[in-house]
Amino acid sequence: MQKNNILNSPPGMKSYLSDSTGEFIEIREKINEIFKIWGYTPIMTPLLEYYDSLLTGMGQHTRKEFYKMIDYDGNILALRPEMTAPIARTIANRIDDLTPPLRLSYFAPVYRYDSPQVGKYREIYQMGLEFIGNNCLADAEVIIIAIEAIKNTGIKNFKLDLGHTGYLDGIINEMQLTTGEAAKLKLLLNKKDFVGIEEYVKNLDTKNIDFTDISRLRGNEEVLTRADKLVSNKESRQALEELRILFEQLKKYNVAENVNFDLSLNRGLNYYTGIVFEGFTGKLGYTICGGGRYDNLLHQYGAGRMPAVGFAIGIERLRIALQNQRHKFNNESVDVIVVYKKGGGLALEIAKMLHKKKVKTTLVEDTELEKYISKCRKKNIKKIISLLDIKENKITFRDIKAGNNKDIIIKEGWQEKLWKVW
Amino acid sequence: MQKNNILNSPPGMKSYLSDSTGEFIEIREKINEIFKIWGYTPIMTPLLEYYDSLLTGMGQHTRKEFYKMIDYDGNILALRPEMTAPIARTIANRIDDLTPPLRLSYFAPVYRYDSPQVGKYREIYQMGLEFIGNNCLADAEVIIIAIEAIKNTGIKNFKLDLGHTGYLDGIINEMQLTTGEAAKLKLLLNKKDFVGIEEYVKNLDTKNIDFTDISRLRGNEEVLTRADKLVSNKESRQALEELRILFEQLKKYNVAENVNFDLSLNRGLNYYTGIVFEGFTGKLGYTICGGGRYDNLLHQYGAGRMPAVGFAIGIERLRIALQNQRHKFNNESVDVIVVYKKGGGLALEIAKMLHKKKVKTTLVEDTELEKYISKCRKKNIKKIISLLDIKENKITFRDIKAGNNKDIIIKEGWQEKLWKVW
Repeated sequence: MQKNNILNSPPGMKSYLSDSTGEFIEIREKINEIFKIWGYTPIMTPLLEYYDSLLTGMGQHTRKEFYKMIDYDGNILALRPEMTAPIARTIANRIDDLTPPLRLSYFAPVYRYDSPQVGKYREIYQMGLEFIGNNCLADAEVIIIAIEAIKNTGIKNFKLDLGHTGYLDGIINEMQLTTGEAAKLKLLLNKKDFVGIEEYVKNLDTKNIDFTDISRLRGNEEVLTRADKLVSNKESRQALEELRILFEQLKKYNVAENVNFDLSLNRGLNYYTGIVFEGFTGKLGYTICGGGRYDNLLHQYGAGRMPAVGFAIGIERLRIALQNQRHKFNNESVDVIVVYKKGGGLALEIAKMLHKKKVKTTLVEDTELEKYISKCRKKNIKKIISLLDIKENKITFRDIKAGNNKDIIIKEGWQEKLWKVW
Repeated sequence: MQKNNILNSPPGMKSYLSDSTGEFIEIREKINEIFKIWGYTPIMTPLLEYYDSLLTGMGQHTRKEFYKMIDYDGNILALRPEMTAPIARTIANRIDDLTPPLRLSYFAPVYRYDSPQVGKYREIYQMGLEFIGNNCLADAEVIIIAIEAIKNTGIKNFKLDLGHTGYLDGIINEMQLTTGEAAKLKLLLNKKDFVGIEEYVKNLDTKNIDFTDISRLRGNEEVLTRADKLVSNKESRQALEELRILFEQLKKYNVAENVNFDLSLNRGLNYYTGIVFEGFTGKLGYTICGGGRYDNLLHQYGAGRMPAVGFAIGIERLRIALQNQRHKFNNESVDVIVVYKKGGGLALEIAKMLHKKKVKTTLVEDTELEKYISKCRKKNIKKIISLLDIKENKITFRDIKAGNNKDIIIKEGWQEKLWKVW
């Protein structure tokens, strides 16, 4: 056991002070604008899930990343490592009371026991959505929203890689690989480990398929034509046809220019059954968002056949990407500070008056004034109301930006006068 | 070990579907309006804390309520059972980079291993704030914000009980009780267990103090006068004097009418060192918010002397209180649905056009239309754009509320025409 300083956050986690939390919330609101305009409504699921419930959805191989615990009743629980499985579980559980299609969104931290890296923590703040139900535009809708939401935060050069699990599955079924072999091959392809792929397929019956070619199926529309030539099975071709239709739909909303194809993409999760995608910006070494279609997941949780598609955005990574692009965050501040000496009854009266008029007002004791004046400059606070000359029966209104001072004598009607010079 | 259905949430936790999450968010925004107008800015701390770190702040007696876990590195961690100690820990850790006074707010779930009851879950969504630093109006400011924030959600009959730990501590010090005796007595007083109190003080040297009287020190301003007569020690009298000054300040902001005094209140937490308070509405059997002054907590985390005061609001309890008062929540819906048959390219073009104009638009496949029409009525959606007659080259615009239909032929300039009839 490590001996840790009780002043620190646990490994892979951290506190966000006001400035960075402000950036978080600004990003959240920008993304939410797009979610709302498409008619998505938020839902919340518990932080803890039954361990078995998560494994049912996510697959046994994910369990090493779980934060697991046994509660006092002996239940094995885990912190949710993502939101798709918990949402599928919740909706499957209540499906009889609901009318799909459902458009659901969330903002939630998830927990993964990874080795911490830059921008990759064990506490991951995600924002995403799930489209649950039949709909021939659902794939297009979800990809459009991912692109528009991320662009709405102010990010530049955003690109989304688009693939389809059916393309590889068609090949793998043709080759009659075992589940283990298929998983291994998919992993190597997903990693774009060219050397590893060549080595691994040496001993397999590849039906004359050149996996070096497949691992290089990344680029614009022309990739679909190349991909078509490499395969002859129906499933792979069906996948390519779906991608073609989808791409035409994306053009109608003017987001096709943000999309590249990558047919070796498979996201390493059991539940994907159709399109899969990942988003990133040029220089950042990791994906900002990821998602795909999962038509069997709700069924695994006991609902009837219920197709679904969704994605998650990593908010911290997006924040870092925005910082790297020198994005200017808003950092709202208060409109005015009211400076007072001991007592402060009048300061409270003035605060009441200003708050009623929705003016953001902070009360500052005179001993703190020096610090506040410099804070005002930094934080762009433009007005000060000083009660320091209260013994002379006056209030001083200082407009820092305009450089004006105005004295107001405290007598009948001073409130209106103060509001007038505002 | 219980065998649980993997479809369920773990004990004491639950999912919130869209309607209830919408209510949550509405409450959050209403509270946030008040937090912001006073200049508070949000911070985020990790869900997990070192177990020892939480005990340092909260006291050993709270540990039975912790969700504890050991991570793969052998660290003993716990889910945060509240936010005050984690925030104090974070601020103490970074105090050298910060300039108090700090005005911090949060919205965060906390976790307590309680027996679940109505409105009392093991996953508790809290919203609150902490004022960290010296300021003679801080107590007043924090109480005003608690009252105004809760009133701003639309709650009626909100009352806040106000006490001061110094009053009881003065008596306890006079009686020279041991820590254990003092804790036991405070607990009985906090519970208003009149019989238990009488029984317990029988064997103590009460210095002629009548604890039956003390346990009944609840009511309006006149309580302070009664309380004064019961004690002669300096500490208790100082506490009463502080309450008198505070009450005058609360009058200046017109919130005194929401405040009652309760001098047996002590909140059962180690860290309170001054005023303590709890808020509730008439009929609800539990508190909606609670807080107080904790001048030693940051010091316990290694910072210098750093006074502080804060509170937390239980959002689920507030939501239930609002429901009990038949509060009408907003439940926003989309502005228009666009109904299309297979294909849907035109539907995406129309969505693009409407989204650009910030019109909330949802796409609906014709097979779902029946369900949507009834949803529209329930959800107050007022407009439908139908693409079902697209073969006749027309779009139909239906204003459900006005009962109007308007056909638009698809030819040069149809977009402007559609926007015109809007």
